[in-house]
Amino acid sequence: MGKFMTQDVLISEVGPRDGLQNLKQTMATPHKRAWIDALAGAGLKEIEVGSFVSAKLLPQMADAADVVSHALTHPGLTVVALVPNLRGAQAAMAAGAHKITIPVSASPAHSWANVRQTPLEMVETLRRIVALRDATHPALRIEVGISTAFGCTIQGPVPDDDVVALAAALADAGADEVGLSDTTGMANPAQVQRLFHQVRARIGSRTGAAHLHNTRGLGLANCLAAFEAGVRTFDSSLGGLGGCPYAPGASGNVVTEDLVFMFEAMGVHTGVDLALLFNARQVLAQGLPGEPIHGMTPESGLPKGFAYAHGRQPTTLP
Amino acid sequence: MGKFMTQDVLISEVGPRDGLQNLKQTMATPHKRAWIDALAGAGLKEIEVGSFVSAKLLPQMADAADVVSHALTHPGLTVVALVPNLRGAQAAMAAGAHKITIPVSASPAHSWANVRQTPLEMVETLRRIVALRDATHPALRIEVGISTAFGCTIQGPVPDDDVVALAAALADAGADEVGLSDTTGMANPAQVQRLFHQVRARIGSRTGAAHLHNTRGLGLANCLAAFEAGVRTFDSSLGGLGGCPYAPGASGNVVTEDLVFMFEAMGVHTGVDLALLFNARQVLAQGLPGEPIHGMTPESGLPKGFAYAHGRQPTTLP
Repeated sequence: MGKFMTQDVLISEVGPRDGLQNLKQTMATPHKRAWIDALAGAGLKEIEVGSFVSAKLLPQMADAADVVSHALTHPGLTVVALVPNLRGAQAAMAAGAHKITIPVSASPAHSWANVRQTPLEMVETLRRIVALRDATHPALRIEVGISTAFGCTIQGPVPDDDVVALAAALADAGADEVGLSDTTGMANPAQVQRLFHQVRARIGSRTGAAHLHNTRGLGLANCLAAFEAGVRTFDSSLGGLGGCPYAPGASGNVVTEDLVFMFEAMGVHTGVDLALLFNARQVLAQGLPGEPIHGMTPESGLPKGFAYAHGRQPTTLP
Repeated sequence: MGKFMTQDVLISEVGPRDGLQNLKQTMATPHKRAWIDALAGAGLKEIEVGSFVSAKLLPQMADAADVVSHALTHPGLTVVALVPNLRGAQAAMAAGAHKITIPVSASPAHSWANVRQTPLEMVETLRRIVALRDATHPALRIEVGISTAFGCTIQGPVPDDDVVALAAALADAGADEVGLSDTTGMANPAQVQRLFHQVRARIGSRTGAAHLHNTRGLGLANCLAAFEAGVRTFDSSLGGLGGCPYAPGASGNVVTEDLVFMFEAMGVHTGVDLALLFNARQVLAQGLPGEPIHGMTPESGLPKGFAYAHGRQPTTLP
């Protein structure tokens, strides 16, 4: 396999959270449950199922506690919820989430626009959430995703040093994992490698997931670059759900189907069954009528002679 | 830039040949001329402008000599034509092409289906073309693209050893460059790296271009892998023209616009102006009414604060 050794990666499906929250329509709770069932059934081991935010601001996420509760019925599934503040963290803990993810923006302008806090104020928020976790839910894992790590639509370029310093402050404040998010689809592979190397040099094994978007078509190339830089957890969404409002027709998150195909074809084990994953697209489509579903591998099908990383032959499903 | 040093790559635009030859409609010659003008005007240094094949088989290419003749009016542009046999090579030489490219399939089944010759018979064909070149047009460069190098829709997987042995035979027979083509969109980044490394170990500096398709969304990731393996010439097509008939909606060739954006954002100089390249899409669309034009960077636009590899600021065009 040359420099790519056989080793596992974790695909963290974020569609039920990141995919839904920018849409105008709200997916009904039973559809969310069926979608999560299909995702877990396809072998995904971690799903970000919702966010605990004001239901006035994001009515799409009003049923987060209900959805977490359903996701918890899947044994072995890590159930993740996004929380922007202490109140959200309390609600996620009460709902029983295994892991929370907190977005902290490296761009002060984006941070202010998004949560009315500076990045350093968000570090303090994290500190309070960590204290709460330690006191009441010690098994809960706390992840921070540094948003706009690769550039900001308001500020423009974000200095590497700002991202590394923020990652260090977040790790110091108690984050179990600090990932890097290309919120605005501005990353390129050289930058992804460079920044993950720098963050790993600073915070070591607390370096977390790559959350990359496909806004300019570079999603998988950026994932490859992150993999080469040692990243082993990748956020993505079924059908690339989560489109950027300013890029009509462009998929937002990296497409889970294409990402899993890439890794398995490379000999990197994901644990995901592609035929079942392709079938999950129909469940998604039923819950979001009229919404474009992206992904090229499902359209083309698996190549003749394809085998999974561990040699398993693909299944054929109706 | 970490492991990516600033260095040039050559983007070889193949749209006017590879993009057109699977379409049902035929682009009129004046539209081809205007398209090539727009491509050359955007800074592309090499364009594959047509193929010299039977006009009965490929009426889209009947005007190849005329199109080559027009392309030659662009100073500094390398004008490439595809030829499948000695007769085609004679015609391309007569028309004044600077470079010919000969497809030789690594899969016997695909070779037979395509040109009714085995791969070894094609090596003999190459030998005759090289002799003709040496005798009559010594300045002409001869490139071979090994098609189905990464897999074949008929045969399935293609052994690495077959590809490397064929590359060696082609270099021995006098090919100036031997590239690898993912004709069927089956390549993955680990395979791309491995195979280019093996071919380079065998034929050194005669290792040619990466011709990669985006059938399963891995096009740019595969280009990145090839770049990391030392490849510095990349085939692509404006708007991803050249869709696979069996993958409706999927772009075929790697999209030139996204590829140029990826390299420039990484700090790798292409010499191409993205604003002019985006404008060339309209010229293409006028010549092929109703045909889907792919590419995500043109839809999203360049990121705020983007600068070219050599530091030049992007131009703004009407």
